[in-house]
Amino acid sequence: MIRSMGMTKKGVMLNDVDVQRLMMPDMKWYWVDMEAPDVDEASLMAGVFKFHSLAIEDCFNDLQRPKIDSYASHNFFVLHALNKKTLEAEEVDCFVGKNFLVTVHMNESPGINKLWTQVQGGSLKGDGAAILFYRVVDQLVDEYFPILYRMEDRLDHIEDNVNSKSYGSLIDEVFNIRSQLLHIRRTVLPMRDLLYRMLNLESLSHIQAHKAYFRDIHDHLLKLTELVESSREMTSDMRDSYQTINSNRMNQIMMTLTIVSTIFIPLTFIAGVYGMNFAYMPELQTSYGYFVALIVMALITIIMLWHFKRKGWFDIFK
Amino acid sequence: MIRSMGMTKKGVMLNDVDVQRLMMPDMKWYWVDMEAPDVDEASLMAGVFKFHSLAIEDCFNDLQRPKIDSYASHNFFVLHALNKKTLEAEEVDCFVGKNFLVTVHMNESPGINKLWTQVQGGSLKGDGAAILFYRVVDQLVDEYFPILYRMEDRLDHIEDNVNSKSYGSLIDEVFNIRSQLLHIRRTVLPMRDLLYRMLNLESLSHIQAHKAYFRDIHDHLLKLTELVESSREMTSDMRDSYQTINSNRMNQIMMTLTIVSTIFIPLTFIAGVYGMNFAYMPELQTSYGYFVALIVMALITIIMLWHFKRKGWFDIFK
Amino acid sequence: MIRSMGMTKKGVMLNDVDVQRLMMPDMKWYWVDMEAPDVDEASLMAGVFKFHSLAIEDCFNDLQRPKIDSYASHNFFVLHALNKKTLEAEEVDCFVGKNFLVTVHMNESPGINKLWTQVQGGSLKGDGAAILFYRVVDQLVDEYFPILYRMEDRLDHIEDNVNSKSYGSLIDEVFNIRSQLLHIRRTVLPMRDLLYRMLNLESLSHIQAHKAYFRDIHDHLLKLTELVESSREMTSDMRDSYQTINSNRMNQIMMTLTIVSTIFIPLTFIAGVYGMNFAYMPELQTSYGYFVALIVMALITIIMLWHFKRKGWFDIFK
Amino acid sequence: MIRSMGMTKKGVMLNDVDVQRLMMPDMKWYWVDMEAPDVDEASLMAGVFKFHSLAIEDCFNDLQRPKIDSYASHNFFVLHALNKKTLEAEEVDCFVGKNFLVTVHMNESPGINKLWTQVQGGSLKGDGAAILFYRVVDQLVDEYFPILYRMEDRLDHIEDNVNSKSYGSLIDEVFNIRSQLLHIRRTVLPMRDLLYRMLNLESLSHIQAHKAYFRDIHDHLLKLTELVESSREMTSDMRDSYQTINSNRMNQIMMTLTIVSTIFIPLTFIAGVYGMNFAYMPELQTSYGYFVALIVMALITIIMLWHFKRKGWFDIFK
Amino acid sequence: MIRSMGMTKKGVMLNDVDVQRLMMPDMKWYWVDMEAPDVDEASLMAGVFKFHSLAIEDCFNDLQRPKIDSYASHNFFVLHALNKKTLEAEEVDCFVGKNFLVTVHMNESPGINKLWTQVQGGSLKGDGAAILFYRVVDQLVDEYFPILYRMEDRLDHIEDNVNSKSYGSLIDEVFNIRSQLLHIRRTVLPMRDLLYRMLNLESLSHIQAHKAYFRDIHDHLLKLTELVESSREMTSDMRDSYQTINSNRMNQIMMTLTIVSTIFIPLTFIAGVYGMNFAYMPELQTSYGYFVALIVMALITIIMLWHFKRKGWFDIFK
Ligand SMILES: [Mg+2]
Ligand SMILES: [Mg+2]
Ligand SMILES: [Mg+2]
Ligand SMILES: [Mg+2]
Ligand SMILES: [Mg+2]
Ligand SMILES: [Mg+2]
Ligand SMILES: [Mg+2]
Ligand SMILES: [Mg+2]
Ligand SMILES: [Mg+2]
Ligand SMILES: [Mg+2]
Ligand SMILES: [Mg+2]
Ligand SMILES: [Mg+2]
Ligand SMILES: [Mg+2]
Ligand SMILES: [Mg+2]
Ligand SMILES: [Mg+2]
Ligand SMILES: [Mg+2]
Ligand SMILES: [Mg+2]
Ligand SMILES: [Mg+2]
Ligand SMILES: [Mg+2]
Ligand SMILES: [Mg+2]
Ligand SMILES: [Mg+2]
Ligand SMILES: [Mg+2]
Ligand SMILES: [Mg+2]
Ligand SMILES: [Mg+2]
Ligand SMILES: [Mg+2]
Ligand SMILES: [Mg+2]
Ligand SMILES: [Mg+2]
Ligand SMILES: [Mg+2]
Ligand SMILES: [Mg+2]
Ligand SMILES: [Mg+2]
Ligand SMILES: [Mg+2]
Repeated sequence: MIRSMGMTKKGVMLNDVDVQRLMMPDMKWYWVDMEAPDVDEASLMAGVFKFHSLAIEDCFNDLQRPKIDSYASHNFFVLHALNKKTLEAEEVDCFVGKNFLVTVHMNESPGINKLWTQVQGGSLKGDGAAILFYRVVDQLVDEYFPILYRMEDRLDHIEDNVNSKSYGSLIDEVFNIRSQLLHIRRTVLPMRDLLYRMLNLESLSHIQAHKAYFRDIHDHLLKLTELVESSREMTSDMRDSYQTINSNRMNQIMMTLTIVSTIFIPLTFIAGVYGMNFAYMPELQTSYGYFVALIVMALITIIMLWHFKRKGWFDIFK
Repeated sequence: MIRSMGMTKKGVMLNDVDVQRLMMPDMKWYWVDMEAPDVDEASLMAGVFKFHSLAIEDCFNDLQRPKIDSYASHNFFVLHALNKKTLEAEEVDCFVGKNFLVTVHMNESPGINKLWTQVQGGSLKGDGAAILFYRVVDQLVDEYFPILYRMEDRLDHIEDNVNSKSYGSLIDEVFNIRSQLLHIRRTVLPMRDLLYRMLNLESLSHIQAHKAYFRDIHDHLLKLTELVESSREMTSDMRDSYQTINSNRMNQIMMTLTIVSTIFIPLTFIAGVYGMNFAYMPELQTSYGYFVALIVMALITIIMLWHFKRKGWFDIFK
Repeated sequence: MIRSMGMTKKGVMLNDVDVQRLMMPDMKWYWVDMEAPDVDEASLMAGVFKFHSLAIEDCFNDLQRPKIDSYASHNFFVLHALNKKTLEAEEVDCFVGKNFLVTVHMNESPGINKLWTQVQGGSLKGDGAAILFYRVVDQLVDEYFPILYRMEDRLDHIEDNVNSKSYGSLIDEVFNIRSQLLHIRRTVLPMRDLLYRMLNLESLSHIQAHKAYFRDIHDHLLKLTELVESSREMTSDMRDSYQTINSNRMNQIMMTLTIVSTIFIPLTFIAGVYGMNFAYMPELQTSYGYFVALIVMALITIIMLWHFKRKGWFDIFK
Repeated sequence: MIRSMGMTKKGVMLNDVDVQRLMMPDMKWYWVDMEAPDVDEASLMAGVFKFHSLAIEDCFNDLQRPKIDSYASHNFFVLHALNKKTLEAEEVDCFVGKNFLVTVHMNESPGINKLWTQVQGGSLKGDGAAILFYRVVDQLVDEYFPILYRMEDRLDHIEDNVNSKSYGSLIDEVFNIRSQLLHIRRTVLPMRDLLYRMLNLESLSHIQAHKAYFRDIHDHLLKLTELVESSREMTSDMRDSYQTINSNRMNQIMMTLTIVSTIFIPLTFIAGVYGMNFAYMPELQTSYGYFVALIVMALITIIMLWHFKRKGWFDIFK
Repeated sequence: MIRSMGMTKKGVMLNDVDVQRLMMPDMKWYWVDMEAPDVDEASLMAGVFKFHSLAIEDCFNDLQRPKIDSYASHNFFVLHALNKKTLEAEEVDCFVGKNFLVTVHMNESPGINKLWTQVQGGSLKGDGAAILFYRVVDQLVDEYFPILYRMEDRLDHIEDNVNSKSYGSLIDEVFNIRSQLLHIRRTVLPMRDLLYRMLNLESLSHIQAHKAYFRDIHDHLLKLTELVESSREMTSDMRDSYQTINSNRMNQIMMTLTIVSTIFIPLTFIAGVYGMNFAYMPELQTSYGYFVALIVMALITIIMLWHFKRKGWFDIFK
């Protein structure tokens, strides 16, 4: 699918006209958007726009890292959108020239669609391709925030439940979020580095002229980096904290077993001894033998409980 | 809420006069403070002060990272205050011009209030906006110290109790402090980087003229960074140390259970054997059988205790 | 084994001609490939090509790190191929001059073979040695991708099975992949640094003239680095997650043992007491004694189960 | 307490003379040392020496990080001494001018005292304030070494005892040393950075003239950094190694319990069955029943031992 | 011990002649080697060679970090040799001048001895002191390789045995190697940094003239750094893998104990109940009571086994 729009120097808006028309000298700016271009549409890139073959190759290869390549007549940018549902990175490629922007993407891009409608509605202020390109980058990066805020909220919620019973079932989600953050980081970090390069490459005179706008996006990406990094640290802290809770609970369980066992096992042994059927066992014949045995058992229990208390073994249950 | 003060070149102090008055050429300096500005007040920024739209946007958006943006007629600074109770970062935005300071914040700021009273009382030395701005930054950063000192004290206190019984209940607090430090770091680190940039940006001629003062704040922030980082390392060391204590205790518990069990289980078995009701069990009929059984049991106990001792199993209780 | 090809300035392709012929001034470019060179072939390097003795030494020594050494008449590059089967790095050494490329490798190189056939088939566009060298580097680096994609797929597959029963048997493979990634990193990171140096060394005028092509390889290596690093992080996250699963399961096991033991051990003790053979045990003679004993046992069981439930011990099995 | 000494250009040594005398133009160099200065003495700094108010403030505030502040007539250095007993950092502030050194410290400083005596004894070679200042820094840094060597020795000693019985009681000390190293690092790292800055600040012409001497201190601090870092790594390795030992021991303990229990529990059950008092139990009445039961028990034991051996469970005790 | 050799400009080799002779202007180059110099020999350094006092001090102090100090008439290098047996670093100090090399070391150095013999045998190519110094550095660094290759081989061997029975006894060696690597790193990393500085210091004109040779050593040190770092990572991976194996084994042990206990403890309780001696226990008097009891016990066993199987508890033994 291919669509186009442009504005003449006289301020007339053109919609979905022929590419040849757009390349005429009376255009102030134009924007061509290709979604999953077919062979004919793709051939425009090399044939009409004269884009560099390595850049075209990158459009059709699998996911590239965000980057900038400068060629004689145009700059080529690889950007990442984040898919709201799958959280996967999706490539949006931009060719930016003096008065044009060509965007290429294999998947439908809600961000591009939204922006297309806005620009058609006349929302574009400023003098053309550079500010148009700013709007694209800004739109894509703005879409990262709700995804990361949702993750941060989820982590905050889990952290509030650290000591609750249901924490065990929450730890799986912590690992999930940690894994998703690792993937998102592969979009956010290179995008941040890309914006930093844009701001510092003298050769990008278009961008230099609108530095304040691109610096604003760079600020966003710095904040996003911080969000990703500190959210990942949060997950590792939560994992450690869960491990401590688990190990405390294990101590309590084993303490219970040990106290019960070490008290009753000797008592059961004594009972076993006097349950033996030897013909000659003098204690059995006395009338007070049974009571003496019970008293001895009670004494052993008391001594053991006192011993455990003195060693502080009951403190673990507090 | 909006309030203002200023000093004329003749040294007359003006309080809460109209903004138009402050912008007259006879002012040496003036300070306008906006707390949670309403629509009218906010419109002053673009309409009267002619601040850049991206900067105004940052004031009303949620928490920005500390940063500096330079525009033609003013510099825009995002600063962070730390709320003493919630420990949350709160944004304080500063527009600094040749002879003015405009501060904007959404929450009540105790630091700004305190400083406002001091400056009204005539405590401002030096020639105007730059030194006024220094006082704002200094005030906000000074308020970080008591928060971090309290955390450090708390950690020192917990560390002193590592081997006490109550340590188990303290480890939760360690995780809490660790989590709070992670949040505070997101204020302290970018503030430190901001001060570093201030000191090294040639374009900030106002600040360059008072370098010693801003360097002093930078020193504070270096010290705060160190406090945050080493406190976080302290928490991870305490967590590891707690894990070791826990695992030692577990070893002691299981050792107790194992010693008691392995001694009594065989004895109880022997007692069980002679408690069987088989018609023909020759040992049962002898007059010394019972005593032989008791002696055998005693021997087994002694051999086992000696075996455990030789393997060093009792050392664990030391 | 030694083989050669070249093209004269008039566009005639020569195959496996004498090295002396190739060095005549009418050659546009030529390529000499040595696989496990014997003594005679090796002597060409010093004797005919006049390569530097340190560079020749590196060819015959064990695995060198990827690097570049510049000499008067030629540049010397150490590259790494990754063996698809063993995943071991294999050295491919390149001497690049104004109009020649000499490749030296001790093992058979499928990548070099494939490229040799392509170039013989006339696929070489551009003006000679630099573009030929580009093709070699590109070929070797392209072969890294399937290896890393396979590892990533394997890890994704294992991650999907984290909670399944068979996870225990998968963790061994995680450690294997982690170990292989450590080895592969020793190829990918220095190769990335090498490409970065190539792009920034002013003295490499050949490469500077084809910067876009070598930048493309550098992009690939940045992406590979990211793949290696995030795959390694994935393995450590999976290890931590497995540890948590293991420790949860241990808690369940011990909980089961403890509940069963602490309920039955006291009951068995009571049964043992009334199994004693003392002559005078008043409870035994009553007609209701047995039933009272059974009721007491039932009560103890109920109280214990209620106690465990109140402490939330059954939650662990959810 | 304040004390002073100085040397006139004619080589006459003055001791504890008035500060005004020292500031006369005929002095080659002079040194004023203030220990916990009272109000009168402190007022000299601003009143007579004209030191910058921010620098004076730092002297009286709590512990500052090591740093350098350059003012018009003097440089201000914050240095750290390490207290041999408490291992706490103690601030030593130095004002260094063309021909003077003023040292300020709140605690008694054994290093300053020692140096004072030496210089009074005429040990000062070279032309004055810069070399005097070098002696101060050198003295303070030299005192770090015995502290760190003692820690390293202690760690080496503990490492030699990793497998001994008493290791458990040594691990506490490892955590202590780790915590102390964290504190010492906060002195050593900033001191190293300070010396690096001294060596590279062109404006410090005094120091540049004696670069070899300050470089020597910088070497010491590089070595100290390495000592701190690798000692900290040693402690984390020892902690991990202790955890492994602990977990091995736990495995041995549980293995013992499991082997004894799983062998005797079924046997005891069999004994229990034939201890039941049912009226009709045919096995009980035969004359060989008892012996068959004993043989069955022996067989069960042998089979179990063989099964455990085949599974390698006894290997754990090796 | 002191020894010397030198070559006159006419190409005459001198052996063990007087130091004064060597300093005459007709010498092309000379080398003086001091092993554990006595007071007389040491006095040559300051008295005859006029070396800087700080450099001489470093020779006699304990182990310095590898470094370079430049003085007017000579450069001073601290190098490290690794002792093959103790793996300890041993300092080799080099004074390098226009036409001389003076080496000083406190221990016998096999590397220096080997090189001395070679040079005496006439193996020195090139024009003197710089190439002689290159030979020394090269010799010392070449000796690092066998040590690290041995460690890497040992680790590879242990890794191949991860799942074998004897792994437990191998983990101690892993910790040993890890500790040795930590020590060796303190030699390799500063040596690498030293070579990097040599290559980039313009003032070292001798070395700049033989850059290819020193770059070769730098390559070696980069490879050694990689070996040390990835070997250390290997040890930490092996430690984690061992922990997982240990914890799996613990799970198996406890599972065995729990299954056996939870099955037999209730059965033994039932047997205990019918072993009680109450006068009135109706079940005991029936002729089928015993068989009913046995059947109930069998049913309990079957239900429990089925329950455990359904919960997947037997999977752990696979
Ligand atoms: Mg990417
Ligand atoms: Mg931001
Ligand atoms: Mg970051
Ligand atoms: Mg960050
Ligand atoms: Mg962070
Ligand atoms: Mg962390
Ligand atoms: Mg922030
Ligand atoms: Mg500080
Ligand atoms: Mg720090
Ligand atoms: Mg820091
Ligand atoms: Mg720290
Ligand atoms: Mg740490
Ligand atoms: Mg390598
Ligand atoms: Mg890439
Ligand atoms: Mg990376
Ligand atoms: Mg990367
Ligand atoms: Mg990553
Ligand atoms: Mg990680
Ligand atoms: Mg752990
Ligand atoms: Mg400090
Ligand atoms: Mg050092
Ligand atoms: Mg370090
Ligand atoms: Mg270091
Ligand atoms: Mg180290
Ligand atoms: Mg470590
Ligand atoms: Mg060292
Ligand atoms: Mg190398
Ligand atoms: Mg390295
Ligand atoms: Mg490395
Ligand atoms: Mg590595
Ligand atoms: Mg690792």
